[in-house]
Amino acid sequence: MYFSKSFIPILKNNPSEAKIKSHQLMLRVGMIKQSSAGIYSWLPLGFKVMKKIEQIVREEQNKIGAQEILMPTIQSSEIWKESGRYEDYGEEMLRIKDRQDREMLYGPTNEELVTDIFRSLIKSYKSLPQLLYHIQWKFRDEIRPRFGIMRCREFYMKDAYSFDITDDEALFSYNKFFLSYLKTFKRLDLTAIPMAADTGPIGGNLSHEFIILAETGESKIFTDKRIFELDSYGTDLNKKSLENLRMKYEEFYSVTDEKFNKEEFESKVSEENRLKTKGIEVGHIFYFGDKYSKPMNASVDLPGGKKDFVKMGSYGIGVSRLVGAIIEAKYDEKNEVMKWPISVAPYDVSIIPMINKNDTAALEKANKINLELLKNNIETIIDDTEENFSSKLKKMNLIGSPYQIIIGKQSDGDLLEFKEIGKETKKINLAEIIRILKEQKAKN
Amino acid sequence: MYFSKSFIPILKNNPSEAKIKSHQLMLRVGMIKQSSAGIYSWLPLGFKVMKKIEQIVREEQNKIGAQEILMPTIQSSEIWKESGRYEDYGEEMLRIKDRQDREMLYGPTNEELVTDIFRSLIKSYKSLPQLLYHIQWKFRDEIRPRFGIMRCREFYMKDAYSFDITDDEALFSYNKFFLSYLKTFKRLDLTAIPMAADTGPIGGNLSHEFIILAETGESKIFTDKRIFELDSYGTDLNKKSLENLRMKYEEFYSVTDEKFNKEEFESKVSEENRLKTKGIEVGHIFYFGDKYSKPMNASVDLPGGKKDFVKMGSYGIGVSRLVGAIIEAKYDEKNEVMKWPISVAPYDVSIIPMINKNDTAALEKANKINLELLKNNIETIIDDTEENFSSKLKKMNLIGSPYQIIIGKQSDGDLLEFKEIGKETKKINLAEIIRILKEQKAKN
Repeated sequence: MYFSKSFIPILKNNPSEAKIKSHQLMLRVGMIKQSSAGIYSWLPLGFKVMKKIEQIVREEQNKIGAQEILMPTIQSSEIWKESGRYEDYGEEMLRIKDRQDREMLYGPTNEELVTDIFRSLIKSYKSLPQLLYHIQWKFRDEIRPRFGIMRCREFYMKDAYSFDITDDEALFSYNKFFLSYLKTFKRLDLTAIPMAADTGPIGGNLSHEFIILAETGESKIFTDKRIFELDSYGTDLNKKSLENLRMKYEEFYSVTDEKFNKEEFESKVSEENRLKTKGIEVGHIFYFGDKYSKPMNASVDLPGGKKDFVKMGSYGIGVSRLVGAIIEAKYDEKNEVMKWPISVAPYDVSIIPMINKNDTAALEKANKINLELLKNNIETIIDDTEENFSSKLKKMNLIGSPYQIIIGKQSDGDLLEFKEIGKETKKINLAEIIRILKEQKAKN
Repeated sequence: MYFSKSFIPILKNNPSEAKIKSHQLMLRVGMIKQSSAGIYSWLPLGFKVMKKIEQIVREEQNKIGAQEILMPTIQSSEIWKESGRYEDYGEEMLRIKDRQDREMLYGPTNEELVTDIFRSLIKSYKSLPQLLYHIQWKFRDEIRPRFGIMRCREFYMKDAYSFDITDDEALFSYNKFFLSYLKTFKRLDLTAIPMAADTGPIGGNLSHEFIILAETGESKIFTDKRIFELDSYGTDLNKKSLENLRMKYEEFYSVTDEKFNKEEFESKVSEENRLKTKGIEVGHIFYFGDKYSKPMNASVDLPGGKKDFVKMGSYGIGVSRLVGAIIEAKYDEKNEVMKWPISVAPYDVSIIPMINKNDTAALEKANKINLELLKNNIETIIDDTEENFSSKLKKMNLIGSPYQIIIGKQSDGDLLEFKEIGKETKKINLAEIIRILKEQKAKN
């Protein structure tokens, strides 16, 4: 893609209305544009990143056997009255009357709707477990939307729901998502830590938030530092292995402020391991048994002929929020350098040829290199403008392709200036560049 | 995918509430479930088909240089007041008040919002042309939603917008979409004919509807039969070639009832070539110049230093509606046999092993075949239930994988019973089956 043909409207300076770095960068580099308070359009650069995140989330849901569906954004109030949440939800729910004067709403979450689907189509324990998910726009009418897409009103979310007949089976499902979340965030190059959390308006008694560390985060967290050294390596999709994984994490104190207890923290965590800091919630999982299935009468036939209410959990990942969370984690604000993880980068490589009027040799060379990279499924953006080198570099540092190829006026045989953002420039040939890029991409 | 593990809730009989065959099949085979009047959830089978259609639409937009963005579903009324459509749109627009009592709406289309994005970010003719598209949920509060997802309230649509400085350039953009649409529908194995159409609430003076023939269609059409023999083969993405393409189609009389003129029809089309029938609209393109850019003050700097309002067109494809349209075109209702085009089939092949209690030989063979097919990126569904053969076949005929492999109790050496739906069963080996399937898939 030529920069001159792309729709990447870059601002010269940081927009004054943005208070945190993800909001600044996203406006600065034209990833989003606000259309109303807390409501954004996604421009090509932001859209590309969000779609890549969505695809990784999807793949990791599919790997644990969850099936993708798609529920609508507009729901009837009736099912929310059945569950009892229609009144409880308060003003964050966007309530709507249609032309027939029926009470509708823009779904802030989907426990009721998925329970309704389940109860009308699944009748027997033989069809269990069922893990269903969708990736859909939600709306929460925040009173003070802020921080760009981090706390906005219309947002894109993956929410999954599990259906089982016993608590034991239901926890097996819960643990599958626990693993899936660790893997998802790892592929996004984020260290997201599961922390015991309150269940809030979703309900239930078991819940983990997945939190990444960030100064600008809105969640206060209290952990044992050593939890950051854990990973899910070697975990299999069986009950025992998944139980062990969760136990391994739960051995270390790690809670959000709602669950914080000073005495417990200090008795369980030695002073040198205590970490009190802030973080951003990127995922949240809940187990709530029959909280919805009971009032909504979602039951299945059991082996003996009896019936029982199905046991449910729900599992959310903020897909649009993750775009901002990755920026909070990766953007070097001082030097104005963004480096996207290659798994979600809008482009793998920025090609920066130095172009003078009447001298297009460097651009032609860039085009040739681009063709070779394309053949290897490496996505590029070529800065084909006649700006000077330093302003080109500045721009490409904001766009944040993790790698750059710089093509000067003098040719140096087969050698190219190749740079991983944040590291030294190397002079290597194209074949070697392709080898490095393919290797990096294959890791995800 | 094992059928027993899938979430494909099949009904024994046709649902009585469905009046047309796409609605019948989609409910029967568990592709969708209604959640409120005119609002549906997409279950895994329907979702898979819709996503494949979406991807083809996307690829054909990208090929003409359109860039993907994503505008929100909820819009502010302000921009609609600027364009003058807020009052005009009437009750089909779902109007909403948020908690701050601001007038919002669920976008039925996006001319205003995209014009707002354009005017705030694009300032010069040098950035033109711009072709922007998005694929997003829309809402039109139909007074009588009917025919399932064919005339529903919440629907999934690709809408694109072009921005140019002259009429001549704008028509070049229009013709790019004209070509793109012909190619898109061809990849969906549909014969969609462009017909001169009224512009309705979008406005402007040039417009084509793309229509496929179907008895159950809501559009009356009048055409010269010979238009069905045309195609876009050999057209290039340059002005002249695209003009020729459109002229080639416009040579033949082809209009919807709003544009119908009996005298003209009879004088231009000889009797044996006249076709009066019904069809389904699957796409609609419009050129409307400065209808939105003028009231919304979307102008760019021209070469000479002057400014002018940008010339715009808009281009829609009903992505969710296409799922139904393909069923209307392909479903043999009498024999209850659906055959999806392989480009959008939920599965490429149904594997039907005959399974008895205590005899899993056929299932094991199915598993082995499945592994080989998977290695070749061929997607399958295996009917692993113990139902009898005829009920399995009936079910798989409804699911509509275009190919079936039947595994009986007796082995016949390396030969397998392989069937393209609607054709004779052949006995061939797996390597030959893979060759056929790969060849068919590569065509798209």
